[in-house]
Amino acid sequence: MKAYHSDSSKVLMISTSKIHGSDYMEYLLDEVEGFLGEAKELLFIPYARPGGISFDEYTKYPTKALAAKGIEVKGIHEFADPKEAIAKAQAIFVGGGNTFLLTKTLYELELIEALRAAVVKGIPYMGSSAGSNLTGLSIGTTNDMPIVYPPSFEALALVPFNINPHYLDPDPNSKHQGETRATRINEFHFQNSQAVIGLREGSWLRLEKGKLELKGPHSAVLFEAQKEMREIPQGDVSFLLG
Amino acid sequence: MKAYHSDSSKVLMISTSKIHGSDYMEYLLDEVEGFLGEAKELLFIPYARPGGISFDEYTKYPTKALAAKGIEVKGIHEFADPKEAIAKAQAIFVGGGNTFLLTKTLYELELIEALRAAVVKGIPYMGSSAGSNLTGLSIGTTNDMPIVYPPSFEALALVPFNINPHYLDPDPNSKHQGETRATRINEFHFQNSQAVIGLREGSWLRLEKGKLELKGPHSAVLFEAQKEMREIPQGDVSFLLG
Repeated sequence: MKAYHSDSSKVLMISTSKIHGSDYMEYLLDEVEGFLGEAKELLFIPYARPGGISFDEYTKYPTKALAAKGIEVKGIHEFADPKEAIAKAQAIFVGGGNTFLLTKTLYELELIEALRAAVVKGIPYMGSSAGSNLTGLSIGTTNDMPIVYPPSFEALALVPFNINPHYLDPDPNSKHQGETRATRINEFHFQNSQAVIGLREGSWLRLEKGKLELKGPHSAVLFEAQKEMREIPQGDVSFLLG
Repeated sequence: MKAYHSDSSKVLMISTSKIHGSDYMEYLLDEVEGFLGEAKELLFIPYARPGGISFDEYTKYPTKALAAKGIEVKGIHEFADPKEAIAKAQAIFVGGGNTFLLTKTLYELELIEALRAAVVKGIPYMGSSAGSNLTGLSIGTTNDMPIVYPPSFEALALVPFNINPHYLDPDPNSKHQGETRATRINEFHFQNSQAVIGLREGSWLRLEKGKLELKGPHSAVLFEAQKEMREIPQGDVSFLLG
C-alpha cells in the first residue's frame, strides 16, 4: 500500500512519552536531540488532549522537557494559520492522548494533507502514542476510547502498516474476560490486511534515509494477516516498508 | 435525552457472557430464564463476531448454553429477511465481540430502527458486552478496537446513558502508562454529557416495567460529567432513566 514518505522523510514513532518512574520524555531526550539535528524549533500539535487538558497546559510538557536540549517548542494553536505553521515548521511533534479526538481535529482543520506534504518534503515528524498511531495507515489499532466520531479512520499513512502503541503482553494470571491486545489485533486482521506493529512502552521506530529501525530496550511484536504473530528484534526493520 | 423504551420494554444489559472459571452464560442462566418468561425462542445476533468466528460457530454458544433451559436459539443470519426476523422474534439476544463491527453491520443492514421498534413494542432484548454497549446512547465508551468504520457511533439508545462493560478498576501496582478505564471515561466527559455506567464483570442491568435494576455480585461505577465518579449499589437504579 502507498505510504507518504520519501528518501528525505524523517519519522520518529514513539510508543509512549513517559515510562514508569521517569519524567515526560526523559528517557528519549538524547534520541530526540539526534533526530531533530539542526532543528531547534519544534511545532507541537496538542489536539489529542490527554485527560482533556487545555492546549496551553499540554504544550508546557514538551516545552519543559526539551528546554534541557535547547529546543524551543511552540503549540500549533498559537498560530493564526495552522496549515502555514506546518508548512514552515522546522520539525513537528504530535503528542499522545485520544487518537479519535486527534484525528477528528486534524480532519476538521484540513491538516492531514499538510502533514503528509511536510513529511514528504523532509520536515522531521515525531509522534508519541496517539501521534504514533497517526503515522500508520489507519487508526484502527488504537487502544483509545472512541469519545468523538472522526470523519474517517484513515491516518497519515507515512508508513505502510499500522501501529499499536503501549503494546501490552497478555497477563497469564488475569481473570478478566475482556480481550487481550493480541486477540484484538487478530480481530483487526479478519477485517484488514495491513501488518500491525505492537510497540512496547520504551520502544520506538525511526525512519530516516529510507531505512526503518526499531530502537529502545524491547523487541516488538509483528502481527500479519493470516500468519502467527512473531517477535522482531531491535535494529533494521526496513522490510516493513514493503 | 430521549431513549427508545416504553413501559412494556424489557432490556437486559450484561457486562460479560462469561466469568472466570465458568462456561458461556452459565452464571446467568436463571436470570435469563426469568427474564425471557414465556419466550422459548431466541433470535441471536452474532454480528460482533468475537475473535472473527463465523456466525454459525458463534450461534452454537448460546444454543448450547440455553438448551439446558429449554430455550431454542436461531441466528439472524439463518433468516432471508433479518428485519422481519426481528419484528417477529419472541426475544432477541445481541452477543458480544467487536462493537464497531456489530454497529457497522446493523447500520448496513438497516436494522437499528427495527431493533428500537421491537424493544418499544415489548420484545425482550438481551445484550452482552458489545450487545450491551449497543443499548446506550452511543458506542463511545466501548473498550474495543476500531477495526472497521461504522457510519455512526450512535447506538440503539434504549436507555439514556452509556455503558462501559467489562469495567476494570485501576491496578495500583501497574507500571503501564496506558490510560486506566476511569481516565478514559473522564476523557469521554470532556466531549460528551451523558452518564456512563461502568459495569463490572458479573454485573448486569435489567429494565422492566419502567424500573431499572443493577444485579449481580458487584456495585457499579457511575461517571457523570463534571462530577466525581461514585459507586452505586445493587438494587433500584431507576434514577438513571432520568
